[in-house]
This record gives sequence, structure tokens and C-alpha cells, in this order.
Amino acid sequence: MAFDPSSLKYDANGLLPAIAQDHATGEVLMLAWMNAQSLAETLASGQVTYWSRSRQALWAKGATSGHVQRLVELRLDCDRDCLLLLVDQTGPACHTLRRSCFYTALRGGDEVEIMAPLP
Amino acid sequence: MAFDPSSLKYDANGLLPAIAQDHATGEVLMLAWMNAQSLAETLASGQVTYWSRSRQALWAKGATSGHVQRLVELRLDCDRDCLLLLVDQTGPACHTLRRSCFYTALRGGDEVEIMAPLP
Repeated sequence: MAFDPSSLKYDANGLLPAIAQDHATGEVLMLAWMNAQSLAETLASGQVTYWSRSRQALWAKGATSGHVQRLVELRLDCDRDCLLLLVDQTGPACHTLRRSCFYTALRGGDEVEIMAPLP
Repeated sequence: MAFDPSSLKYDANGLLPAIAQDHATGEVLMLAWMNAQSLAETLASGQVTYWSRSRQALWAKGATSGHVQRLVELRLDCDRDCLLLLVDQTGPACHTLRRSCFYTALRGGDEVEIMAPLP
């Protein structure tokens, strides 16, 4: 079946949550948001572009940092309201320079940092 | 640092997106939503409880299907507005009886089902 981007179930703000996962290791790198335009740009260019809710603007991931995400495969969930992006991540995904944004784990009721910033 | 659930950045509806990932294989199983109460019940019981936006009620995952998720580890992202749940999933995570909700891939502009329902 041909993919029709208008068949996705965007939320009231026209957004979908998009999970970025390292295509090779399976590590979950980050969650960000996409609108129809960011998805179209991602599919056209093969480089991931999100929608920044704080800046209310397209966010070409890595455009300033160089920490780009090349899209390897896009997957949809059963409800068509969430995207899974299998990506080839250059450098850290997180603005803190950690590989993943999910570097804080709960252990014994405490928050523990389980990942150091990349050198 | 002791974990303080009130330090999380819930959205305007009091919700956080929560990604469930198979703790052993790294497979991303689903994305659902948590409010403060569902997170508290998850941490207290060790079994994942979400908030159902459609039913506007707590959703103890697997309570009727038996397809429960045992929480292995909870992780927070850098913005404290998204959760990553490393889980031990019994059976399929998806209501379609597929292991993961992300069973549709885009390939060559077409939607392709890459996962069959579990027997």
C-alpha cells in the first residue's frame, strides 16, 4: 500500500511523537516531534528534521552541531499516531553531548547518570 | 539524588510520553502515556500502568489480556518530559497481537508489514 502521509493521526497541534533509535545497536536516542512538513522534509532529504515546539520552527537535527541523523527506516505504530525512526546518528543525539537523551536511570529510588558526555 | 516525581515536566494534560523497550533485545514495543498516578502505580507495583487517553482512565497494561509489562528500569530524558521504560514483556505488546506496535515500515514509498501476529 502506498504511504499517504495525510493518513497519519496528528494531535491537536498537528504533531506526532517520533522516537529515534540507533539502527545498529537498538539504543533509544531521543524523542522529539514532527509535523507534516518536517516529515516531508525528512523523507525527501533522508536527514531527520523535527518540529521544535519551543521555537515553533522546523529543526533540521544537527544543522548547527553537525550531529545529524540519517534516516535508515521509518516505521509507524498500529494507531498511526507515533513514528519510530531508525537512524544512523553522527556523534551524540543529546544537547548535553551524551549519546542518548535517556542518560538518567532510577535505581533504588535515586537518579543515577549512566552515561557520560562524549569526548 | 533522590527521584522526585513532581520534578517531571508533564504536558498541559498532565501526561508524559512513555516508550516501552524490551530490556533484553532493545526492540521498541510501543509508546503510551503516563500521568503522575500511573507512574506512581508502576513504581509501586513493578508492573507498568499507563493512562488511557481514549478512556480517560488508568490502564494497567495486560490486566485483561495477560500481556503484562514488568518494569526492569525507568529512565528519564534530559528535558524530564519523556520516559523510557525497559520492560520484560509477556507475549505481544500490541493489541493486534504483534510483538511491537511498530510493525509497519516504509520501503520504497510503500507501507510494508514486517511482523506477523504472534501465534
